[in-house]
Amino acid sequence: MEAKDVSSAGDDTALESSRPRTFIKDIVRGVTEELVGRKVVVGGWVKTGREQGKGSFAFLELNDGSCLANLQVIVDAAVHPLTQLVPTGTCVLVEGELKKPPEGAKQSVELKVESVLEVGPVDPAEYPLPKTRLTLEFLRDFGHLRARTNTISAVARIRDELAYATHTFFRKNGFRYVHTPIITTSDCEGAGEMFQVTTLFSNAEKVEKELKQNPRPSETDIEAAKLLVKEKGETVSQLKSSKASKQEISASVSELTKAKESLSRLEERFKLKAGIPQKDGKIDYAKDFFGRQAFLTVSGQLQVETYACALGNVYTFGPTFRAEHSHTSRHLAEFWMVEPEIAFANLEDDMNYAESYVKFLCQWLLDNCIEDMEFMVKNFDKAAIERLKLVSSSPFERISYTKAVQLLKNVTDKKFENEVEWGIDLASEHERYLTEVLFKKPVIVYNYPKGIKAFYMKLNDDQKTVAAMDVLVPKVGELIGGSQREERLDVLVKRITDSGLPLEPYEWYLDLRRFGTVKHSGFGLGFERMILFATGIENIRDVIPFPRYPGRADL
Amino acid sequence: MEAKDVSSAGDDTALESSRPRTFIKDIVRGVTEELVGRKVVVGGWVKTGREQGKGSFAFLELNDGSCLANLQVIVDAAVHPLTQLVPTGTCVLVEGELKKPPEGAKQSVELKVESVLEVGPVDPAEYPLPKTRLTLEFLRDFGHLRARTNTISAVARIRDELAYATHTFFRKNGFRYVHTPIITTSDCEGAGEMFQVTTLFSNAEKVEKELKQNPRPSETDIEAAKLLVKEKGETVSQLKSSKASKQEISASVSELTKAKESLSRLEERFKLKAGIPQKDGKIDYAKDFFGRQAFLTVSGQLQVETYACALGNVYTFGPTFRAEHSHTSRHLAEFWMVEPEIAFANLEDDMNYAESYVKFLCQWLLDNCIEDMEFMVKNFDKAAIERLKLVSSSPFERISYTKAVQLLKNVTDKKFENEVEWGIDLASEHERYLTEVLFKKPVIVYNYPKGIKAFYMKLNDDQKTVAAMDVLVPKVGELIGGSQREERLDVLVKRITDSGLPLEPYEWYLDLRRFGTVKHSGFGLGFERMILFATGIENIRDVIPFPRYPGRADL
Repeated sequence: MEAKDVSSAGDDTALESSRPRTFIKDIVRGVTEELVGRKVVVGGWVKTGREQGKGSFAFLELNDGSCLANLQVIVDAAVHPLTQLVPTGTCVLVEGELKKPPEGAKQSVELKVESVLEVGPVDPAEYPLPKTRLTLEFLRDFGHLRARTNTISAVARIRDELAYATHTFFRKNGFRYVHTPIITTSDCEGAGEMFQVTTLFSNAEKVEKELKQNPRPSETDIEAAKLLVKEKGETVSQLKSSKASKQEISASVSELTKAKESLSRLEERFKLKAGIPQKDGKIDYAKDFFGRQAFLTVSGQLQVETYACALGNVYTFGPTFRAEHSHTSRHLAEFWMVEPEIAFANLEDDMNYAESYVKFLCQWLLDNCIEDMEFMVKNFDKAAIERLKLVSSSPFERISYTKAVQLLKNVTDKKFENEVEWGIDLASEHERYLTEVLFKKPVIVYNYPKGIKAFYMKLNDDQKTVAAMDVLVPKVGELIGGSQREERLDVLVKRITDSGLPLEPYEWYLDLRRFGTVKHSGFGLGFERMILFATGIENIRDVIPFPRYPGRADL
Repeated sequence: MEAKDVSSAGDDTALESSRPRTFIKDIVRGVTEELVGRKVVVGGWVKTGREQGKGSFAFLELNDGSCLANLQVIVDAAVHPLTQLVPTGTCVLVEGELKKPPEGAKQSVELKVESVLEVGPVDPAEYPLPKTRLTLEFLRDFGHLRARTNTISAVARIRDELAYATHTFFRKNGFRYVHTPIITTSDCEGAGEMFQVTTLFSNAEKVEKELKQNPRPSETDIEAAKLLVKEKGETVSQLKSSKASKQEISASVSELTKAKESLSRLEERFKLKAGIPQKDGKIDYAKDFFGRQAFLTVSGQLQVETYACALGNVYTFGPTFRAEHSHTSRHLAEFWMVEPEIAFANLEDDMNYAESYVKFLCQWLLDNCIEDMEFMVKNFDKAAIERLKLVSSSPFERISYTKAVQLLKNVTDKKFENEVEWGIDLASEHERYLTEVLFKKPVIVYNYPKGIKAFYMKLNDDQKTVAAMDVLVPKVGELIGGSQREERLDVLVKRITDSGLPLEPYEWYLDLRRFGTVKHSGFGLGFERMILFATGIENIRDVIPFPRYPGRADL
């Protein structure tokens, strides 16, 4: 099995692992006494660098993204040319010894560099992110570099923590993670406008290209080919009736076959048409990839219900989409949702899970992410940490929609833009008033009028309301929407029909009620809304790595 | 704050939590002595049920999806009509006492029902999944019910465990989870054909509908409107030159404004065209939602690199798409990928991470999922558990591509369909021979010819190969593909140009090399391939909850 004798191209026997790199978080959060004197390799990007002592050494504030804090790094001019190291954005991998800084320094440990292992330089004249403070709006034009800023990297860590906390919470409670489909042929009750997924455009382009290289046959070509088939056919008949030799007949049959094949190829190509395939004046989706219209999901709920009706407690956590021309600071065309679905659970159970999930997320950030949260308090929202503490520790208020309306109607200290009347969908101003002013803590509003809610929500005995609930929190308003699902076949059929929807696309959904139906409930949490709530950042475009909205889908 | 006096519609004060349900897994895995005598509420679906003792009681094998095992449940006819409970698929929520079964029973504990709290009945004549064993292919037509079968629910649990293991592994190693975009305007080096995401069809439909309700103005309408504007304009001039009163002039100006507005509305509507918007004979994507062509991602790699170049160690785990007309048992149009990206890491580091990740997954299943794995051994692949043990315990073989080719050329005991020659892309038959026959364990092949690999892979010093690596495992062949990324700006530019690609779409990617470039590496693991590998199931359509492939996107 020796291969040394063959071409040595690519037979790189010198492959070697890199020296283990120490994360800056493990240094800045470490115990100073244990760290001082240790040799480490550290890599990261220079936040600020400055030459000191007439250019004899430089201080670098180095950040590796493992935490908010930088490590102070000291490099002597003898070790490496300093001008290459000091520009903001420069990448360095350095080796050195951790030292105790002089008395009075704010950091508890710093790195004295012994050798610079690697440098990724920056021309400060060209670097788009100078060290002056940049607005989040400006940074959106630099989606590929903005993760190097304090704010966006802190958001990324908070987002990661919330994702992990989500999986942890549901696992602890016996839930299984289910990947619901992104491409779907179901419409979740017109939850919003949908993006269509297609290969019709690219297919049309291919046909067009093909026709350019190899033009479509003319009718004359087809006629000629038909004539040839006829002639060859006649020859075969003649030979047969004249009892020619087997050999002769078989030769003529073979020619006939060829002529037929050639004709069918021509006829196939004759049908080729540039453009989107049409049938009866409409686009022919039978020619599309899935043989029908397909869309990007607006919610995994209906599909994940099929798993709840088999595995009991399940959840989905994935991207969802809305093709709405919404330019607000609260909407994205692509965003992530967490959607648990729970068998044998009623609306009260649903609220209990929603409340403990949100509390768990808040406590998780307090326990695992306090530095980044302190950064948010300092720079975006003084109340951010207080809010997490409040939510994680106080029971959520629970009021029926009817009561909420009554309370809002009695409000005298504020004039709402949208008048409150039983039957309306609560507007953001109402929701925020309830949670921020009236109760000053999270509020769950339940039992909404059926007219403003989706068909799949369980009809209450009053026949006027459905077992829906929304969790409202300070700062963002609605964070969670959920409901008990209608598990009674006859009621569900009526609700679908009454909503003006056709039954056929929901037959599979009805099957869940036909065969071993189960009381079940679920909810959806907008993941980016949760990050807005936690951080106090104002615009949802800044809490997702690559925001998509009308006119923008960078990268 | 009393709302009792208002309409009581929906003010459901009787909301109450459900009785806590005990998962069957906690019963069947529990300690018998502790369980016997306990009262529990259990819910699930009847796998098989049979009346006994001349209809005086029934045995139900109840499954709640929390584990593979069923709980044996005994119901007396006095408690509930038995015929409603015994059909396969029936859902029941029951309360009762756990008892020790008679000597010789295979289960260690069973439930004696005291009351049946809820029933979701099944008409056995209509239930599509009778208790006879069904093929996986048959089950694909019942995507909404198949999770109730042993196989699909076991796969769901294994899938969930692998997802959780993935997050656990990367978190342990200091990685942050990044959500890369699903909708993208970048093409990951033509990794495959892409689905297009569009609102052009739905917009066209809207226009068509609008034009039907409210036909387009005729040219005569436009001319008339123009004439009116002219007349009104002349009136204004006349009044002005005749020094009419301010009132008169302002009235005529207001009429002119109205006429102008009406004209512009007509002109706007005149431009409305049914159909897909065109410009210069091509589809006008400026009119699409994102103002340009947008696609479903084929890989999050390029985008996640932007985060690796800021946070160091990151990974993405999300859906990816291929619009390929592939009908094999190994391809899906929608599948999930895990893609870590590691700063300051070379190819060797990349291989180390890949190897320890795969080992971690295998060990995780052995530790957390052994019952479901035993089911796979019994029903699908005798070697499944042995394979997990082998992979989790033995070091992966690592050989260069050049050596792999040499070894394959020397093979005499097998004739390959595709001839082996330095420069070819290894086919599945070669990969599987290496891992299954030659080494009988996972093999990492590295340093592939540059001609068969993507532009972003680091060019080796030999100028012939790139620092790419594939992890091959028994049963599925390629499980992971990865590489060190080209971090040198000039080399990368040349590689893009040499590949015949335009530079402009990659400017942001080049920026990562312009500003603080860093040596970095990453890989991608096909999540469904990993499940095939683990379970021994043959068709990838059976290891994802809702498979999408040409012609099929159910639900």
